[in-house]
Amino acid sequence: MQTIQQHFQVAYSYSIYFTRNLFEESNPLLRSFFEALHEPGFRRKALVVVDAGLLPHYPELPDAITSYFSTFSSHVHLVPDILLVPGGEQAKNDPALFDQLVRAVDEHGIDRHSFVIAIGGGAMLDLVGYAAAVSHRGVKHIRIPTTVLSQNDSGVGVKNGINYHGKKNFLGTFAPPVAVFNDLTFLESLDDRDWRAGISEAIKVALIKDRTFFAWIEANAEALARRDSAPMEYLIHRCAEMHTEHIRSGDPFEFGSSRPLDFGHWAAHKLEYLTDFSIRHGEAVAIGIALDSVYSTQSGLLPAAELERILTVFHTLGFELYHPKLSENDKLNLRNGLQEFREHLGGQLTIMLLERIGKGVEVHHMDTDVIASAVDYLQALYPSFAS
Amino acid sequence: MQTIQQHFQVAYSYSIYFTRNLFEESNPLLRSFFEALHEPGFRRKALVVVDAGLLPHYPELPDAITSYFSTFSSHVHLVPDILLVPGGEQAKNDPALFDQLVRAVDEHGIDRHSFVIAIGGGAMLDLVGYAAAVSHRGVKHIRIPTTVLSQNDSGVGVKNGINYHGKKNFLGTFAPPVAVFNDLTFLESLDDRDWRAGISEAIKVALIKDRTFFAWIEANAEALARRDSAPMEYLIHRCAEMHTEHIRSGDPFEFGSSRPLDFGHWAAHKLEYLTDFSIRHGEAVAIGIALDSVYSTQSGLLPAAELERILTVFHTLGFELYHPKLSENDKLNLRNGLQEFREHLGGQLTIMLLERIGKGVEVHHMDTDVIASAVDYLQALYPSFAS
Repeated sequence: MQTIQQHFQVAYSYSIYFTRNLFEESNPLLRSFFEALHEPGFRRKALVVVDAGLLPHYPELPDAITSYFSTFSSHVHLVPDILLVPGGEQAKNDPALFDQLVRAVDEHGIDRHSFVIAIGGGAMLDLVGYAAAVSHRGVKHIRIPTTVLSQNDSGVGVKNGINYHGKKNFLGTFAPPVAVFNDLTFLESLDDRDWRAGISEAIKVALIKDRTFFAWIEANAEALARRDSAPMEYLIHRCAEMHTEHIRSGDPFEFGSSRPLDFGHWAAHKLEYLTDFSIRHGEAVAIGIALDSVYSTQSGLLPAAELERILTVFHTLGFELYHPKLSENDKLNLRNGLQEFREHLGGQLTIMLLERIGKGVEVHHMDTDVIASAVDYLQALYPSFAS
Repeated sequence: MQTIQQHFQVAYSYSIYFTRNLFEESNPLLRSFFEALHEPGFRRKALVVVDAGLLPHYPELPDAITSYFSTFSSHVHLVPDILLVPGGEQAKNDPALFDQLVRAVDEHGIDRHSFVIAIGGGAMLDLVGYAAAVSHRGVKHIRIPTTVLSQNDSGVGVKNGINYHGKKNFLGTFAPPVAVFNDLTFLESLDDRDWRAGISEAIKVALIKDRTFFAWIEANAEALARRDSAPMEYLIHRCAEMHTEHIRSGDPFEFGSSRPLDFGHWAAHKLEYLTDFSIRHGEAVAIGIALDSVYSTQSGLLPAAELERILTVFHTLGFELYHPKLSENDKLNLRNGLQEFREHLGGQLTIMLLERIGKGVEVHHMDTDVIASAVDYLQALYPSFAS
């Protein structure tokens, strides 16, 4: 009998809004979003989930959310219980939190035309996004990222996930949100490490794609280091723009092997595990970028003067670019990360390196001796860190 | 700052092959599929999961699979342990089975360019498909459905899922397989109930979309009832074709509220639960279709002569169209199913009814008195069943 050929396309569309004080009653942005969606006959609900780490800085946040939603309750009905879940990578290691979220979707009758709204850092957004994506085969999900990293990178993208038996993002889906609201006031509460850490994803995307943006970061590195808000807002907007443009024009759900946005990430993922997540994702990414940049130079791809600029910009921003765990066990622990990275992506090993600032190049092999030598180079630069 | 607009499309494509004796070495179909995918540098693996209910009928199946794959091991490496999981709806109620599958994907290093191949009935395919869809954010998934129902309907579509706290398909995703292989020899092992049950989805799709196909089923009902294989093969092919055409031309991942293929399913889902799954999904669908057809006539939509044809074709095929659970608790238990169906779909209640054979019509309200009266009508037709 004749083979049946199935083929179709699925269209996705969402906006990333930039604002301040999202839940102030005078701010019409979120209200307008729900009003525009209103359809007679639909009774939409919204379940709000807040990163518990925000509460010490914003104790009034749950009340502000409740008041804000009360001004348009005919368009969307807020579930009165605002759910709190812990933030940080550890939240992605705890299956009980995933269960708690799924149960809340069930108990509060959140259907596929209702909303789960997550407010928090990147790890917590990944967790809540995954629970929303698999409940009823996907309820509508709104992200309100509160950190530099989530506002310019993970929170504006299409992935979610949780860890499983020590494997990062082993369980997850590709599931675009229906909207992202970047509220820049949340950045004020970040400690210096979190403020800085998110900048490494902007440096990453500049290094592989946009020399002009890198030069802008160089010129503004000192202002960013002293926490000026204007350059940070530009950096987040430009990075989010490049991140979404990359998803749009490429392979949104990563059916192929190429993942240029994972520049510096093979070592970063491994280092996060080797340090038991005592370093932030963005801090690990900075080290991973430094390592792969040194590797690029040592293997003859990237001119030394370009490497110098890269290391200098990280240094000006206050990043440490070496960690003793890189050298542990004769660097074998780190090098195992390369194989694990290949397994997670699948297929052929594909690693992004640099041939110059603004231009990445993919390779399918890394020389373990050169990796070891690149680690030694970073250690020599930062002797204070040697174990 | 300017809002960033994100929009993109994701393309999906897969084939549904029809064959016999898929794992006989002389059958090139599956081998050719893997050979066509071969790329140097990729080492693809295949994890095969078999519905344990097949083994009493096909004790040689695991060995046949192992032998078959050994003939092209340079293109795909079969994981030596063939996994067995129970089939039937109860498999979707057991979270430990989902865990077992995810663990197997992890332990055997199945990456996003490797395959999970599921061989079994619809429930088991839903379970394995869900585990494959969320592992590494989606490993490649091949379905080999072994029942009428899964070969003509669920197995050729894009959904997967498991039950959660008694809610059918509460957890799941939309995730197209990379290929479907309908091996018609598996149908020979079905008992009469499973052979018959799958026909109800073909009647469903004929009733809402294709008067000619319905007339064909009418003309072949006696041959189908006595298990002639030629009309069954045509029925499966035509139903699979209409099912995939519907997905392709409509709303593949069901972002809207309209689900015409759920004709007869609101009552069917509820009845499955009320009977503790002692009746097959297809048997429940037959009753659900009968109920909504009687309702269509009693509410003035469907001519009585058309209803007569519908009930007759089910009767000729040997379906029972009444179950005492329909009447339980003054029919309130059944009627609660309408609200639960709305909640699972979300948004406005949307129910498909018939205005004639081959033409469905959507309504947004059902009259509870007419539902009760339709139940009474079916009970009167089948007095042997009265409790």
